[in-house]
Amino acid sequence: MKNNPKLKEMTLAEAVRVHGRTNGSRSPLTLFWTGSGIEVNLTGTELWIEVEADYETYEPWISVLLNGAPISRQMLTAGRYWICLFRGMSAGSVKHVRLLKDIQAMSEDPDALLQIHALRFDGDLLPVADKPLKIEFVGDSITSGEGAIGAREEMDWIPVWFSAVHNYTALTAEALNADYRVLSQSGWGVLTSWDNNPRNRMPRIYDQVCGLLSGRRNEELGALEPNDFRSWQPDAVIVNLGTNDEGAFHNAGWQDPATGERRKKRLNEDGSYNEEDLGTVEQAIERFLELIRSRNPRARIVWVYGMLGLGLMPAIYRAVDAYGKRTGDRNVSVFQLPNMTEETVGSRVHPGRLAHERAARELAGYLRGILPRAGGGSGSGR
Amino acid sequence: MKNNPKLKEMTLAEAVRVHGRTNGSRSPLTLFWTGSGIEVNLTGTELWIEVEADYETYEPWISVLLNGAPISRQMLTAGRYWICLFRGMSAGSVKHVRLLKDIQAMSEDPDALLQIHALRFDGDLLPVADKPLKIEFVGDSITSGEGAIGAREEMDWIPVWFSAVHNYTALTAEALNADYRVLSQSGWGVLTSWDNNPRNRMPRIYDQVCGLLSGRRNEELGALEPNDFRSWQPDAVIVNLGTNDEGAFHNAGWQDPATGERRKKRLNEDGSYNEEDLGTVEQAIERFLELIRSRNPRARIVWVYGMLGLGLMPAIYRAVDAYGKRTGDRNVSVFQLPNMTEETVGSRVHPGRLAHERAARELAGYLRGILPRAGGGSGSGR
Amino acid sequence: MKNNPKLKEMTLAEAVRVHGRTNGSRSPLTLFWTGSGIEVNLTGTELWIEVEADYETYEPWISVLLNGAPISRQMLTAGRYWICLFRGMSAGSVKHVRLLKDIQAMSEDPDALLQIHALRFDGDLLPVADKPLKIEFVGDSITSGEGAIGAREEMDWIPVWFSAVHNYTALTAEALNADYRVLSQSGWGVLTSWDNNPRNRMPRIYDQVCGLLSGRRNEELGALEPNDFRSWQPDAVIVNLGTNDEGAFHNAGWQDPATGERRKKRLNEDGSYNEEDLGTVEQAIERFLELIRSRNPRARIVWVYGMLGLGLMPAIYRAVDAYGKRTGDRNVSVFQLPNMTEETVGSRVHPGRLAHERAARELAGYLRGILPRAGGGSGSGR
Amino acid sequence: MKNNPKLKEMTLAEAVRVHGRTNGSRSPLTLFWTGSGIEVNLTGTELWIEVEADYETYEPWISVLLNGAPISRQMLTAGRYWICLFRGMSAGSVKHVRLLKDIQAMSEDPDALLQIHALRFDGDLLPVADKPLKIEFVGDSITSGEGAIGAREEMDWIPVWFSAVHNYTALTAEALNADYRVLSQSGWGVLTSWDNNPRNRMPRIYDQVCGLLSGRRNEELGALEPNDFRSWQPDAVIVNLGTNDEGAFHNAGWQDPATGERRKKRLNEDGSYNEEDLGTVEQAIERFLELIRSRNPRARIVWVYGMLGLGLMPAIYRAVDAYGKRTGDRNVSVFQLPNMTEETVGSRVHPGRLAHERAARELAGYLRGILPRAGGGSGSGR
Repeated sequence: MKNNPKLKEMTLAEAVRVHGRTNGSRSPLTLFWTGSGIEVNLTGTELWIEVEADYETYEPWISVLLNGAPISRQMLTAGRYWICLFRGMSAGSVKHVRLLKDIQAMSEDPDALLQIHALRFDGDLLPVADKPLKIEFVGDSITSGEGAIGAREEMDWIPVWFSAVHNYTALTAEALNADYRVLSQSGWGVLTSWDNNPRNRMPRIYDQVCGLLSGRRNEELGALEPNDFRSWQPDAVIVNLGTNDEGAFHNAGWQDPATGERRKKRLNEDGSYNEEDLGTVEQAIERFLELIRSRNPRARIVWVYGMLGLGLMPAIYRAVDAYGKRTGDRNVSVFQLPNMTEETVGSRVHPGRLAHERAARELAGYLRGILPRAGGGSGSGR
Repeated sequence: MKNNPKLKEMTLAEAVRVHGRTNGSRSPLTLFWTGSGIEVNLTGTELWIEVEADYETYEPWISVLLNGAPISRQMLTAGRYWICLFRGMSAGSVKHVRLLKDIQAMSEDPDALLQIHALRFDGDLLPVADKPLKIEFVGDSITSGEGAIGAREEMDWIPVWFSAVHNYTALTAEALNADYRVLSQSGWGVLTSWDNNPRNRMPRIYDQVCGLLSGRRNEELGALEPNDFRSWQPDAVIVNLGTNDEGAFHNAGWQDPATGERRKKRLNEDGSYNEEDLGTVEQAIERFLELIRSRNPRARIVWVYGMLGLGLMPAIYRAVDAYGKRTGDRNVSVFQLPNMTEETVGSRVHPGRLAHERAARELAGYLRGILPRAGGGSGSGR
Repeated sequence: MKNNPKLKEMTLAEAVRVHGRTNGSRSPLTLFWTGSGIEVNLTGTELWIEVEADYETYEPWISVLLNGAPISRQMLTAGRYWICLFRGMSAGSVKHVRLLKDIQAMSEDPDALLQIHALRFDGDLLPVADKPLKIEFVGDSITSGEGAIGAREEMDWIPVWFSAVHNYTALTAEALNADYRVLSQSGWGVLTSWDNNPRNRMPRIYDQVCGLLSGRRNEELGALEPNDFRSWQPDAVIVNLGTNDEGAFHNAGWQDPATGERRKKRLNEDGSYNEEDLGTVEQAIERFLELIRSRNPRARIVWVYGMLGLGLMPAIYRAVDAYGKRTGDRNVSVFQLPNMTEETVGSRVHPGRLAHERAARELAGYLRGILPRAGGGSGSGR
Repeated sequence: MKNNPKLKEMTLAEAVRVHGRTNGSRSPLTLFWTGSGIEVNLTGTELWIEVEADYETYEPWISVLLNGAPISRQMLTAGRYWICLFRGMSAGSVKHVRLLKDIQAMSEDPDALLQIHALRFDGDLLPVADKPLKIEFVGDSITSGEGAIGAREEMDWIPVWFSAVHNYTALTAEALNADYRVLSQSGWGVLTSWDNNPRNRMPRIYDQVCGLLSGRRNEELGALEPNDFRSWQPDAVIVNLGTNDEGAFHNAGWQDPATGERRKKRLNEDGSYNEEDLGTVEQAIERFLELIRSRNPRARIVWVYGMLGLGLMPAIYRAVDAYGKRTGDRNVSVFQLPNMTEETVGSRVHPGRLAHERAARELAGYLRGILPRAGGGSGSGR
C-alpha cells in the first residue's frame, strides 16, 4: 500500500550503526567523509530516512546496499526531505541496509552538507554487530574513488564521478569482513597538495573530526573539533598518500597569499627529484607515522602506493625505514598497489572500477597475511 | 552555484528522443514499459526533469546513463517533483543523457504511473540521431530483468530487483548499436501465464500501446489504444516467451472466476508434456508469429529461449517450422540462449547480471550474422 | 639414477584401463580414435611405454596427463621405441597417468598406426576405477579438436593442430566425472562429407571398430570388425554432426568414380536450402538415431550443434522430433552449443581452446540436468 | 610422405638464432640455462633437430613454439637422436620455430646435458631478426618456472614441473617484444641459498657462462669460462632474488664441510630478522648491483620481489637506495610483483601459470613505462 499506517518515526536510535568520524551527535547525524553512513537491521517492510543536503557547488551523492548488494545511487539536491530506501518487503525477516555517503568531504565548498535527521519504518530495529576488524584508510583522490564511476572521456571535476562503493576501501573491508573509515581528499598529499600548497596535507587535519572543511556551519557542526580516537581504535591504518606530492614536483609552485612566500618541489635538470625537496617529503612521512602511531597505539600501519605511478616509492621506503629504526616501531610496513592500466582506467584519467577491484584483491591478500583477525577467503569480489 | 539562474523550463521538445511505445503525448510523457525513457543531447551545465509517480503497491525506479555510463538508479516515490540528472558540468560540450524506466509495466497495480512532465536546463538541446538498427523485445520476467539486481537470497516480489540496464535487451542493443523497445511481463507466456491463466499472454495485448495495464487512469492515458506500428518498424523482433508456459505444466490449474471453467496444461504420468496441451502452445506460437509478421512486415523474427531451461524448445522449433512451411515466411528463426548457472544466478532465482551479459554476448553474435546493419565488434560489455 | 635397475617390463596388464574402441587385443593395443588411450595407477618412480608408430602422411601425436594435469605433448615419428612418461618420482604414492592419442583416426592415410606394446616400470600397478558415467561423442573436425591448438594463421591440414585435451569432449567428461569415447572425422557428416561424398558419413561406420580406416593393415588389425557394443554401454551419446552436411550445400558436387553418378546438396536461388535435399539430411539423422538407439538401448542421445553456425538446426530439430514421434523414444534431445567468435577462434578457422572451454561449460551444464549420475560442480575448468 | 628425400642436414648455420649464454660453439650447441634455445625461420615443409641428452638424475625437457604458439613439450631421455619439430607443412611460407630448454641448469646433477648437434630440413633457412629490446632475468625457482606446470598436489622435486614457457620471463619478453636470457637456480639467493649455504648465491657465478654447473664435462664444455658480456648487452636486467635469503632466516644453519664453520641467518626472539644478518644480505645486494652494473653499463636494473612474500622488501629498498646514493647510479629501481594466492598457486606450492601471467602483466606494464623501446599493447596474454 502506498501509505503505510504502521510507519513510526524516530531519530537514529542506538541500534543504528554509524560509520565514519562524527561530531558525536545523532540528532541529526552529520556525514563528513566518503564511505561514512549508517547500517541498519530492520524486521519491517519499509524504511525511510530524512536527509538534509546543502552546497554551493558540490552536491552530495549517496548509495544504498540492501543485504550487501548495491541497489541505488542518487544525487541529493538541497533541502530537507524524506527518501525511501526500501518498501514492500516481507515483514519479519531481517533486512540489512547500509547507506553510504558516496563522495568525499568537499574542502572547496564550505556550504556542502549532508545530514540524516530521522528514520521512518515499521517493524523493529535489531542491533548491528561489530565486525571483528577495524580499518582506517587515509588518502587522496584515489581513496576518494574519484573516477571509479562514469565514462572514460569525462573530465569535469564534479561529485558524480566519485564512488565509495566501487572503491578499494570498501572492497578490501568487505573481503576482510572489517568495519572501516575513510579520510581522503582529492589533490592533497602528505607534505603538500598537487600544486605545492602546504596547507593541503592530510596530516594537518588528522587529529580533527574533519578539519579540511571550512565555513562557520562546519565549525559549528564540530568538524574542527579533536577526534575522539579512543572511541574507535583500528586494527590497521592504511595510508595511500604520495601521488600528489609526486605531482607537485612537476607542477607550478604555490605562493602564500599572506606572506608572498613561494613553495615548489623541484626537479633536477636531468628530471630526477631534487634531494632536498625529496627529504622534506620523507620527513613529512615520518612525522605522519609518528602522529598516527600516537593516536593508534596498537594499529598495524601500512603505507600503500602505486595505483598512479611509483615515483616516490623509494622515498616512502626510506622514510618508513627511518621511522622504524628511530622509534623501534616494527608494526609499520609498505605495500605496492597495482598500477592503473589502459584496461582499468576510469573517468577523469583516474583508476576505474576494475583498478579498484585489483587493488583490493592485492591489498586484502596482503592484510590477510598480517592481521590475525582478518576474515574471509580469497575474493574481494562483489 | 546552487541555484542556476540560467535554467529554463520546457516540455519535452522535439529534440528529445523518446523510447518505448507511447500514447503519442509528450506533455506529459507517460512511460509504460521497462527500458522506455528519453534520450537527450545537451550543451548545458545542468539538467532536471519533472516526474510524476504513483502506485498502490509497486513504485517506479529509474536509471540514468551519462555518456553511456550508468551513474544513478533510484526509487521514485509518489508525487510530482523535480529530479536533477546532472549539474556542474562544463558548458558547451555535448552531454548524452539517457533516462530509463528500470521496471516493467505493472499489470497488478492499476495505480502504477510514471510520467515526465518537463525539463529544466541551461544550454541547448541538440537532436539525438536515430541508430541504424531497431529491435523490439517481447518477453516475460527474464526480459523484464527480474533478478538482475540484488542479493541472491532476495525472494520478495518487488520492483527493486528489476533492471533495464543490466539486462540482455539493453546490452544486446548496445552491442549492435540499435534503438530498442521492450514489451515484457513477469509470469506471462505465449498461451497462458505460469498459473495457467489464459488472459495473461503477451499476444493478447501485443496490438495495444500497453494493454496489460488496467484501471481507469491507464485507460484514459491510452494504454489500451491500438499501437501505431507504422511509426516504428523494427529490423528484428526478439520473442523470449515459453518459460511460463512450461511452468504452467507443473503448476496448479486456473479457474475462470466468471464461468467456473478450469484450465490446466497437463503432464503425462511419466512426467512428459501432454501432447494435446503442448499442441495448444504450438498453435499459440504460430498465431503470435502471424500477428507479429502482420504488424512488422520486414522484420526478422527470432524466437529465443533457454535462460531458465529448455523444456519447450522442441515445441518452439516445431511451431516456428510449421509457421514457416505454411506461410512461406523465411525470415523467422529460433536461437537458444545460455542457461542460467549457479555462477550467474541473480536475486529471486532469476538470471543475474552475469547471465544477462552472457545471453547478450551470444544473442548479439547471432544477430550480427543475420542483420545486415548490425554494428559493432564482438563485445557487449559495459 | 639414469638406469633404474628395478624396472620390469610387461604387456598391458588388466590393471591398465584402456579407453576407446579397440580390436580387443592388448598385445599390442592399437589406438584408433582421438581421445583413446590408457590410464594407469602406479606406485613406482618411473614409467615407460613402448609405442609403435607409422604413417605415410599424418603422423600420430600423444598427450600425457599426470594426476590430471597435462605435462607433455609430442609427435611420434615412425618406428617402435620406448617413451618415458615420468621418472624420478617418489616411490609409494600413487601416480595417476593418462596417455591420450591427440589426433583423429586418419581416413586418408592407410599407413597411419599407433600402438602400445608394453610398459616398463617399477612399483605396482593398482586398478583404475570406472567412473560413474560413460559418454560417447560422435562428430567431425570440431569433435576431433581440429584447430584447438596452434597459431590463428595456421592453415595447413596436418595433425599438429588437433587436440584431444583442450577439447570439449575431454572437458565435458572431466566436468561430469565421466569415462568417454570419441568417434570423429574432419569433413564428414551425417549424410555426406563437406564435398558431397556419401561414403564419408559417420553412420556408415558406426557399427565398426573404426570403419573409416582403409588399407590391409587396418583391416588385419580389426578396424572393420563389428564393434562390441555390449562391452561398453554409454549413459549418453552426444552427436555433433551437421556442420559438413551444411557445408555441402555450398560446395561443389561429388561424382562417383565408379558409376559417374553426381551428388550435390542444392541451394535455392534465394540462397535457402533445397527442401528435397534438406529432407534427405533429415532422413539421415533419423536413421542414425535409430541406429544409435538400437546399439545403445539405455543411453540418452543428445544431438548438439552450433559451434560453427546454426544453418541446419531447424532440420535437426525436425528430424529428432520426427524420430521421437515415430518411435516413441523420449530419451533424445537437441542442444545448441555456443558459436565460435572472433575471440575464441583457433587455428585453421576452427574453434580454439576457449571455444572448446565454453562449449564444454554449456554442455556439461545441460547434461548435468538430465543425467542422474553426472558428477561435479559447475566448472569444466582445468 | 614418410621419408622426405629433399631433407638436407647441417650444423646450426648463422641463420639460426641462438638464445641464452653459450660457450660459443654451435657444433654442437650446448643449452645451459632455462629459456635458452634456438629460433629458426624456415620455408621448408619439415624440420628435425639432432639432440644429445644426458643426466644422472634430472633429465632435460624441451618445448616447441610454432609461429608463437606452444605445440609440444617433451622429456628428452639420454642419448643422441633426432626429433621432428614439424612435418607436412606447405612449402614456401615462412614458419617461425622456437625451441626452448624448459628446465633450469641443474647444479645438483653434474651429468645433466642438453646439446643440439644439427638440423635436418628442406627449403631455406631465413635470418631471424633481432628484437628491438634485450632483457636478462636473474632469479631462483620462481624464475625457473618451478611449479608453473603440474597438479597442485605434486611435491617431488623433479624437472617435469618446470616451465620456461608459462613463465613470467617469457611472457614479459613477449609482451614487450624483447629477446631475453634467464639465469636462475632453485633454492639459491643473493647471499646464500635457502639452507644458508653461501656458495649457492647467484652473484658468485654471474660472470661465468654457467658457473653453477659442476663436473668435468661441464668444465670442458666451458660452463665455468668467463661470459662474454660485450656480445649481448641487455637493455634491462631483472633480478628476482631474496626469497631464499628470506627462507634462510627460518631454516637450519649450514656447516662448511671443509672448515666446520657454521652459517645461519638469525631471527630475533620476537620473530623479526636479526639486523646484523639482514645487513649482510643488503651488502650482498649492493655488491651484486655493482657487479651487474660493471658488466652492463647501459642497462636499466630492476630488482623485483614479492611472488612468494615480501619479507625482505625493506632490506631490498635500503640496499638499492644505498647503492644508488653511493654510486650516483640512477638507473636502478625496485618493483613489487603480485604475491601468489590460493587461486594462482601451481605445483610444489610455487607460483602456477596464472601467477606467472599476473606477474608478467604487472612487470611488463612497469617496464613499458621506463624502457623507451619496449613494444606492444597492454597484453602479455598468449
